[in-house]
Amino acid sequence: MPHTINKIKLSDRIGKVPASPIRKLMPYANQAKQKGINVFHLNIGQPDIETPSAFWDAIKNYNQEVLAYSPSEGYPWLRESWAKYYNNFLQKEVYPENFIVTTGASEALQFTFSTIADPGDNIIIPEPFYANYYSIATERNIEIKPISTFLENNFALPSPEEFRKIIDNKTKAILVCNPANPTGKLYSEDEIKSIAKIAVENNIFLIVDEVYREFVYEGRQHYSALNIAEAEENVIVVDSVSKRFSACGARNGVVVSRNKNFLDNVLKLAQARLSPPTLAQVGTNALLQLTPEYYEKINKKFDSRRKTLVRELKKIPGIKVPEVYAAFYIIVELPVQDAEDFAKWLLSDFSYENNTVMLAPASGFYANRELGKKQVRIAYVLEEENLIKAVECINEAIKIYNK
Amino acid sequence: MPHTINKIKLSDRIGKVPASPIRKLMPYANQAKQKGINVFHLNIGQPDIETPSAFWDAIKNYNQEVLAYSPSEGYPWLRESWAKYYNNFLQKEVYPENFIVTTGASEALQFTFSTIADPGDNIIIPEPFYANYYSIATERNIEIKPISTFLENNFALPSPEEFRKIIDNKTKAILVCNPANPTGKLYSEDEIKSIAKIAVENNIFLIVDEVYREFVYEGRQHYSALNIAEAEENVIVVDSVSKRFSACGARNGVVVSRNKNFLDNVLKLAQARLSPPTLAQVGTNALLQLTPEYYEKINKKFDSRRKTLVRELKKIPGIKVPEVYAAFYIIVELPVQDAEDFAKWLLSDFSYENNTVMLAPASGFYANRELGKKQVRIAYVLEEENLIKAVECINEAIKIYNK
Repeated sequence: MPHTINKIKLSDRIGKVPASPIRKLMPYANQAKQKGINVFHLNIGQPDIETPSAFWDAIKNYNQEVLAYSPSEGYPWLRESWAKYYNNFLQKEVYPENFIVTTGASEALQFTFSTIADPGDNIIIPEPFYANYYSIATERNIEIKPISTFLENNFALPSPEEFRKIIDNKTKAILVCNPANPTGKLYSEDEIKSIAKIAVENNIFLIVDEVYREFVYEGRQHYSALNIAEAEENVIVVDSVSKRFSACGARNGVVVSRNKNFLDNVLKLAQARLSPPTLAQVGTNALLQLTPEYYEKINKKFDSRRKTLVRELKKIPGIKVPEVYAAFYIIVELPVQDAEDFAKWLLSDFSYENNTVMLAPASGFYANRELGKKQVRIAYVLEEENLIKAVECINEAIKIYNK
Repeated sequence: MPHTINKIKLSDRIGKVPASPIRKLMPYANQAKQKGINVFHLNIGQPDIETPSAFWDAIKNYNQEVLAYSPSEGYPWLRESWAKYYNNFLQKEVYPENFIVTTGASEALQFTFSTIADPGDNIIIPEPFYANYYSIATERNIEIKPISTFLENNFALPSPEEFRKIIDNKTKAILVCNPANPTGKLYSEDEIKSIAKIAVENNIFLIVDEVYREFVYEGRQHYSALNIAEAEENVIVVDSVSKRFSACGARNGVVVSRNKNFLDNVLKLAQARLSPPTLAQVGTNALLQLTPEYYEKINKKFDSRRKTLVRELKKIPGIKVPEVYAAFYIIVELPVQDAEDFAKWLLSDFSYENNTVMLAPASGFYANRELGKKQVRIAYVLEEENLIKAVECINEAIKIYNK
């Protein structure tokens, strides 16, 4: 048998799927830690809040002899709990059959993209956007058409005209994340209705990623796209328990829609992977029974962090800080030429009082990478005293870095 | 806002993904149950064996405040345990870095297909094959090129010449399931080496689904494709804990390869979905520590069922029963014109001593559906007394059905 000499060619599509931009910095973060430097992780979207005990109790009380496959669409009792949770805030009722349970919002997006778009089709997304939208689309040979939004006007949604300008006969959907990762932007009822109108007019889908639904501050209200009766055939919501309940490792999400044809077809993909994880469903069911007090408590905590973070960031000379009212992210422009280089340098060459900071360079969230070149995303998933120290670190670092 | 009038068009690819063939029969099974008839489920691939207590203990002893994302490639301790488990039977050592942890073998297949093949490329698979290979490929616009095997010669692997005949410049891999679902076929060391040779000669991948590795009877030995030094750049193994440990609902699997370029690229897809379920990793780690006694006990049980089932099946006049030595499936040819219609009729119109049987029509496992028209797949995942009653049921049913 001859030994393989040529490297076996992989697919073109995998060549176009980017490696995680944050991962590139990981070796530098590890080096810093090995030197005994404390690294404040402002780069990750994982809440530090305790996962509610209801989750752990449900898991520990689950007594079955066989850990069986669940139905591909999820257990009926879980779909019912999801519907009940949604009907607490929706003005227009949803039913268990509007939900298919997935392995996180990631799988909800995978199912959605494959069900609505063929290779060469496109999906329009305001940039900066969650980087994995691009990877999931690219794996499926679907193009992302970005439509730029800008820090200078708080990442406001582009006008309907701008959307209409880039829609073509290969456009299958508009996707927005509301509240938005990575910008912390909350789209208003009017804004959501305006893009729903565009979706209806063009007979395309409107996909809304609402995983940060409860993280909304200063008395503002989140408006779910599922409220829009006129767009009920168009709207697809993807959701997850990860952020809401600090249960990122559970891997439980849903795809929600009133479009029966869409969900019937999603089900075929759900069947092809057999079932979502059973234990995550058991735990999620308990989480979905939590009362409004739970959300209020979490919300208050993040709101307080947000205020502290924004106040501290504004102390940095030359920084641009947008207004943010939602999620737990903010994108800021730093007075540096290349934020990615700065983020690397923070880890490899800098410490202040034995601390340094890991940031997410924002260029990874833009299709047009130049737009985010001086920007970083900061996740406020640390206690306030650490947020203060972390920003102090950044402030000191910029002084030295720019010399 | 105008109301949507036209149904929104879905993707062409989703139109080609088939609905689960077994699912079509489910309403009839439910009807039978509503009439008070007991249904023996010979249609499912889910073992009825208890999930080992080690799994449940590990979950119940997992004390963390935050249910966090794991590394995208899986926890280091789990990759180490997988490597250790493999090194118990491999002649050629593997290391933790050869493993990426996935959400079941389903996700291992998804990652593999996307990483090696573009739309229009093809993968060669002996038919009958596990139906979801087709769905996972079709979602990715990859073609499955079937190469037929036949009940009459116990589903023997086609000759190398037959493989060579259908390989073209769009062929990216040969995929075999060994031991095989749905046939119960065990490929020998020579057979595995012969297809590895073809893969090496053509500089394509050999994907082997080895989830039934331990279910091998009558002193026969399973030979893993990972043993073949000459094909180490070509071989990709997909695996899962579902069958081995009766833990189908855990959703833990791996993709295993010594091809670094392949795994580096799989990792990008793993990152795009963040992480595999954390609790499944905790439980799987405990399962992988089980000693050979565990496998022997399970093996003995299934072997005894196999013998009983084959003995009973041979009592049916006109049936064709192949020799099977592995997994827990057998495909038999029934003396009926249309096995799918017969399977439906068993549920809708028949009972014997208040029992009936749910079978998996084999046509769903063939690309060339005519080949399996008279065949059904039987999973021996019931206690022997029930297997005996179930086959008795089928025997009686055929007499009436053929009148």
